[in-house]
Amino acid sequence: QSCTIDNAINLMIKSSTESLVSSVLSKVKLDCTSVSARGADVSCPSGYLATACACGMACGSWDIRGDAACHCQCANIDWTSARCCKTRVVG
Amino acid sequence: QSCTIDNAINLMIKSSTESLVSSVLSKVKLDCTSVSARGADVSCPSGYLATACACGMACGSWDIRGDAACHCQCANIDWTSARCCKTRVVG
Amino acid sequence: QSCTIDNAINLMIKSSTESLVSSVLSKVKLDCTSVSARGADVSCPSGYLATACACGMACGSWDIRGDAACHCQCANIDWTSARCCKTRVVG
Repeated sequence: QSCTIDNAINLMIKSSTESLVSSVLSKVKLDCTSVSARGADVSCPSGYLATACACGMACGSWDIRGDAACHCQCANIDWTSARCCKTRVVG
Repeated sequence: QSCTIDNAINLMIKSSTESLVSSVLSKVKLDCTSVSARGADVSCPSGYLATACACGMACGSWDIRGDAACHCQCANIDWTSARCCKTRVVG
Repeated sequence: QSCTIDNAINLMIKSSTESLVSSVLSKVKLDCTSVSARGADVSCPSGYLATACACGMACGSWDIRGDAACHCQCANIDWTSARCCKTRVVG
């Protein structure tokens, strides 16, 4: 007899959880910020990953080091900027 | 007597919710698109954030304004492109 | 009489699920990696999307093809690099 109650409760759990979870998933957002520094290197704030770098002197040759630090490779680079993103739960 | 039923139900809820939630989390995906425009500026579609910019004239000096707009800084820029991303719940 | 039990169970489900779900959402993280290749083209590993490209020869003119492949547009490009990201459920 108890297993019908179990099943009933499990069904209730499953249906109400599914709708709740799907509605809550959209709370996970992308959060991005930019940081800049003089010279050829700059690092993202803690918790962020670099998604791209920009450089002074019109330089398009860069690389990302250790997942969150931008390095501009051209000579005499006056500034370096990093675009930094992470996921964030909102609301 | 009721608290043992409460505990039993709570245990049922906890175990089935955990497995459901973990399986559903992978529905949160990254969604990216590119937009381009003539001139030195272009904005991402609503809801997207800019993760990088590309510029004509081999220019690698750009910045992101207001989280979703690319600006290419070199002179006589003929086109600007933005790479735009957001999170999206699939399925 | 049964509907009061239903309501009680539903309330239990709702409250415990909400707290669990919110705590679990933060398990969805951004995961990024970089790939490079000789020449003017490189593709992200499967499952990743390109968020930006870098090019040799100081070139800042690039485009992303098919969501995950970088193409550097300047002449005589010696290397191309792609920054590739996706969401990942941790823990």
